[in-house]
Amino acid sequence: MLRDFFSPKSIAVIGASRNKEKLGSLVYKNIQKYGFKGKVYGVNVKGGSIGGDKLYETLSGIEGTVDLAVVVVPAKAVSAVIRDCGEKGIRSVIIISAGFSETGVNGKKLETAIMETASEYDMRILGPNCLGIIDSWSKMNASFAESMPDPMSISLLSQSGAICTAILDWAGYNEIGFSRFVSMGNKLDIDENDILDFLYHDDKTKVVLGYLESIHDGKRFMENARKLVAKKPLIIVKSGKTRDGARTVSSHTGSVTGSSVAVSAAFDECGVVQADSLEDLFDFARIFSFSPEMKGDRVTIISNAGGPAVMTADALDKTALKLAKFSPKVKRVLVENLPAEAATDNPIDILGDALSDRYRLAIGETIKDENVDALIVILTPQVMTEVEKTAKIIVDAKKHGKPVAACFMGGTRVEPVVDFLEENKVAVYNFPERAVKSLDVLYKYHEFRKKLNEKSENVGQGNYKKAKAERIIREASQRKSRNVSQGEYGVFDVFDAYGIETVRRAYSENWGQLKEGAIKVGYPVVLKTAVSGVVHRTEVGGVVVGIEDRKALAQAYNSIKGKIGKVFPHENSQAMTVYKMEEEGVEIFIGAKRDSSFGPVVVFGIGGIYVEAFQDLSYRIAPVSRTEALKMIDDIKAAKILHGFRGRQKCDIDKIIRSIMGISQLMIDFPEIKEIDINPLKVTDKKCVAVDGKIILDLQLERVKELV
Amino acid sequence: MLRDFFSPKSIAVIGASRNKEKLGSLVYKNIQKYGFKGKVYGVNVKGGSIGGDKLYETLSGIEGTVDLAVVVVPAKAVSAVIRDCGEKGIRSVIIISAGFSETGVNGKKLETAIMETASEYDMRILGPNCLGIIDSWSKMNASFAESMPDPMSISLLSQSGAICTAILDWAGYNEIGFSRFVSMGNKLDIDENDILDFLYHDDKTKVVLGYLESIHDGKRFMENARKLVAKKPLIIVKSGKTRDGARTVSSHTGSVTGSSVAVSAAFDECGVVQADSLEDLFDFARIFSFSPEMKGDRVTIISNAGGPAVMTADALDKTALKLAKFSPKVKRVLVENLPAEAATDNPIDILGDALSDRYRLAIGETIKDENVDALIVILTPQVMTEVEKTAKIIVDAKKHGKPVAACFMGGTRVEPVVDFLEENKVAVYNFPERAVKSLDVLYKYHEFRKKLNEKSENVGQGNYKKAKAERIIREASQRKSRNVSQGEYGVFDVFDAYGIETVRRAYSENWGQLKEGAIKVGYPVVLKTAVSGVVHRTEVGGVVVGIEDRKALAQAYNSIKGKIGKVFPHENSQAMTVYKMEEEGVEIFIGAKRDSSFGPVVVFGIGGIYVEAFQDLSYRIAPVSRTEALKMIDDIKAAKILHGFRGRQKCDIDKIIRSIMGISQLMIDFPEIKEIDINPLKVTDKKCVAVDGKIILDLQLERVKELV
Repeated sequence: MLRDFFSPKSIAVIGASRNKEKLGSLVYKNIQKYGFKGKVYGVNVKGGSIGGDKLYETLSGIEGTVDLAVVVVPAKAVSAVIRDCGEKGIRSVIIISAGFSETGVNGKKLETAIMETASEYDMRILGPNCLGIIDSWSKMNASFAESMPDPMSISLLSQSGAICTAILDWAGYNEIGFSRFVSMGNKLDIDENDILDFLYHDDKTKVVLGYLESIHDGKRFMENARKLVAKKPLIIVKSGKTRDGARTVSSHTGSVTGSSVAVSAAFDECGVVQADSLEDLFDFARIFSFSPEMKGDRVTIISNAGGPAVMTADALDKTALKLAKFSPKVKRVLVENLPAEAATDNPIDILGDALSDRYRLAIGETIKDENVDALIVILTPQVMTEVEKTAKIIVDAKKHGKPVAACFMGGTRVEPVVDFLEENKVAVYNFPERAVKSLDVLYKYHEFRKKLNEKSENVGQGNYKKAKAERIIREASQRKSRNVSQGEYGVFDVFDAYGIETVRRAYSENWGQLKEGAIKVGYPVVLKTAVSGVVHRTEVGGVVVGIEDRKALAQAYNSIKGKIGKVFPHENSQAMTVYKMEEEGVEIFIGAKRDSSFGPVVVFGIGGIYVEAFQDLSYRIAPVSRTEALKMIDDIKAAKILHGFRGRQKCDIDKIIRSIMGISQLMIDFPEIKEIDINPLKVTDKKCVAVDGKIILDLQLERVKELV
Repeated sequence: MLRDFFSPKSIAVIGASRNKEKLGSLVYKNIQKYGFKGKVYGVNVKGGSIGGDKLYETLSGIEGTVDLAVVVVPAKAVSAVIRDCGEKGIRSVIIISAGFSETGVNGKKLETAIMETASEYDMRILGPNCLGIIDSWSKMNASFAESMPDPMSISLLSQSGAICTAILDWAGYNEIGFSRFVSMGNKLDIDENDILDFLYHDDKTKVVLGYLESIHDGKRFMENARKLVAKKPLIIVKSGKTRDGARTVSSHTGSVTGSSVAVSAAFDECGVVQADSLEDLFDFARIFSFSPEMKGDRVTIISNAGGPAVMTADALDKTALKLAKFSPKVKRVLVENLPAEAATDNPIDILGDALSDRYRLAIGETIKDENVDALIVILTPQVMTEVEKTAKIIVDAKKHGKPVAACFMGGTRVEPVVDFLEENKVAVYNFPERAVKSLDVLYKYHEFRKKLNEKSENVGQGNYKKAKAERIIREASQRKSRNVSQGEYGVFDVFDAYGIETVRRAYSENWGQLKEGAIKVGYPVVLKTAVSGVVHRTEVGGVVVGIEDRKALAQAYNSIKGKIGKVFPHENSQAMTVYKMEEEGVEIFIGAKRDSSFGPVVVFGIGGIYVEAFQDLSYRIAPVSRTEALKMIDDIKAAKILHGFRGRQKCDIDKIIRSIMGISQLMIDFPEIKEIDINPLKVTDKKCVAVDGKIILDLQLERVKELV
């Protein structure tokens, strides 16, 4: 448990300094400054005093017990300090000092030494290279940030100290407080997983915000996130998502970022709210901490101006939300009581000359309507607009227990009232698009939570022939080949073993066998070399498509034999596989790749030449359940093609699901598989047939296994 | 010319009132309040005085000439007032009064009457139902908005008075001034086209912002926008883009929105910067009014924190911009002078303990580098950060003539300095994503301007056979058919006549002709009924595909004859067209639709079943030049498929271009064509063949033509 990091009874600041310029001085003073009730000891090898308090020369000189140590000495001295902490019986240590792995190899070595000592004493370490911890409930600011947020129900964890500073500065300005505020630095020991677990149990935390650059243990992260999200919202900005971004992260923290696709898939699966920017993070933080549950997607828009009402409706159209349709009774009251020129359909335009009474009427009537789940109230400061009175009406509307987002547009006249709204826990925005986006994630989170209870499904229950697949995969690794064979027993047989329908085919080692094989599979056919080791078969002339009859087959046979014979003189260039040419069907793509942090990521999308162009793909972390597989299918834009539209036949969705689940299970059963790629599978109403595919192995992993 | 609307020598406020509660009082006082130098007359039928000034009972009672009338009387009285204005010789009138077409049919009638009188006296009208005009140069506030922006080079036109109010309130708060500020209201006479033309000639305007809900005369808008954009940036928020949004617009202003696709295409073609929200509008306004030309796409990022640097690089990756690569010399200076732990590759991380000197070094060195086109300077308020000093360095860096966007993250510590930066004309943002997005549009605008000079290309120069197409189209309209025939002479012949390659086909009226025809076009073939009036041919069994030989042809013939015979007993059910079955090639889609405001909009994309799923389409307003047609092709995501990737053959791009241009010219030559749809065309390296297509006519337009 991390309790002592947040509400210790006593703290030692090691490196506390008389020199006001030093961080050690600042941290020591910060701890005392905001009303922390526990004991605070300053430690400095040079002794002396700080602000009248004695500075201890050694930790052991302190008489009482110490729950938490905050270390602010130079990097090279930290290791020895940690040992002193261990000897003193301290089990919780924050290392603020920088100069570790973020600076290179030598810094990394210092960290290793610290971790060894910490393990010896069963000690937990936060940092190094962090801002520290602020806890507004115990009034402890064990950091070098010069402010103390008001106690509120939002907690924050961040992998960047600078982001912490910016957020604190922003929060103070915008009347936002925090509960627990944690800067994790280099995450030598304590990382997001520990913090999430702590915050899960923490009654003072209702909403969790995070800024992350890397996630080392994706599997554990998913467990923790899932658990937490079932109880409270978790909103995360994950930076380093794109190429240039990822490069920057590794240069500045030395941590390797997980594939952004795996991170996104994991967040989605666990119901983590993804914020694309700090702006989103702040926006979402407000709506989540101020709003009750949003029980549906039906939103009322009320505005004293048509233009902004239009823009809000525009924005709404791009989300999962929709405009509420009022009950006849509410509609009648609006028509009877608003001016004739007002728009009483949703969005409600109460007109530019509206005083607060029209807001009161429109808000009061629609919020009670059972067809309404949330409100967006827009105000533009026109001549007669009663900005403050309207704000009070909005605050008052909170009693109805439905989310209300305010959008007060402008500056001079609205800003003071924006502060008033925030103080009264109303989520308020300057622009309609931001209000809409925030309500949208609020709705999606509550939808996710609702469905959590429905889920309790077993996965990996398919009737898979693991032994058969194992023989084929082992053969490839014995050959030291990264590719599972395309020959007599190969990839297609592995797919078969995992419930994936495969193209009809026949292996042959000479013309006689080939003739027979082609008749067996049925014309038209495709002929491919089966010589192992030929990776790019098309490029070397090892593939002929559209073979209609025996004559064309003979031509193809001779052509492939000749070309492969030249390039691979020591192989049997007559080894070929003849495949049924699957002409009909929509082409889909199923693949999987192993992520170093999250494990296997399964991918599904439209196949053939369109995969790269459209990137119309959906991702899941394996294992993929039946429900999730269906969702993967529905997540792509082209889903309607598969479900049959414009008189086209519906594809066999069940067979697609089984193929996805098969790939998922293959990745779980064989850790040595690095990548699977089936492109395309041809799908009609009766089949879902893998036509081309490959399995790539991680030979290094294989070698490690051999050694063990 | 609209000069008198902005800098009149004398103004009459008709409806000026002693009653402080009335708009007439407010408008009268506003005009005098901010230092307007001209004469101001108040007119009120009841006479009396206002703030010591005499109120004239009639306009004719005023001795001198009046340049501008501002009308604030009730709607029903306006018409008579307009006649008085005409008699008084006033040619410029602002009608602020509401209660016109926005309220329904009766209001619309009032407008018609006003317009008749105005025409009689050769008068220009702004409004009705508008906020008025503010001109910061003549210090005239002829509106009921209670503020006067500082004179700056940004002008604004808006179709919503409420948006004007919100913008003014925001601008005052954010130290942003305006040059000319125009609320257009119902656009009875003066609309965006007039204002754009005025601002084009206006030396005091360097940047134009607009909020529009509808554009009535798209063609004229494009002319005006093109002209203006060549001289100064035009940034527009167009609301009512989506379904719900568009519905709201029409309910609240009575104006019908043009198709949002046509608007977007027109904006793109004219180089109008599209803002998706007011937030974007404000962001873009800052960068455009404060920045010099951005000559390239290479950006330096400088930050005192790694996290935000990563987020900025992430954001940059999604735009047309890229990270600059520094010259060896600059790189050396950075490495030598920044701490060892600093990141000296772009993004530059000068570390959390950076004082302003490190900013000075990094900014000063990189801004001089010829490999750098713009800078983003990020500051997070850390303990030792010198916020103000750093701001001064940024202001100072403006002298190098390259765009610099500042991103100051936080609240309490940074906000006062943000004001300082804005006062000193530095574009400053709270979040890195907003800085990046703003620089991106700045870059794109300057790129667009650069290429303007390159363009001077003729369109419509193809060798088209208009007479042939005309005969076929006339035949359809004589039949009173919305669809151009699919029979002997029909759509495919029209396409032929306009340079579009069409599928080989043969028309036949009996089995004997059909047999011959099939041999002529060559198996495999597709057979379709040629009976006119059969709209959904597939649904009634009028189409058979994949016919491999004469036997299958006979079967197909009998099947179609039987089915069509039943449904259309009075037609020759043996009339059929046999088409070559085009098996190879990528399927593309070319279409066109006539927009009521912008004229023909041409659309291009990937064809077949994927059109609707992916909406991977590009649009242009006709006429489409060769250059624009190529751009249309490159604008879609799947362009790389057409250009040949992964060893696939490159498609015949030139033939695609010719097909696009042919469709464009067809729409121009035949105003009666409402819609053209060719889906698919099959494209390989040698051909681009229309396989299926239709032309839909506007019979009403045809009838009108017949009457004339």
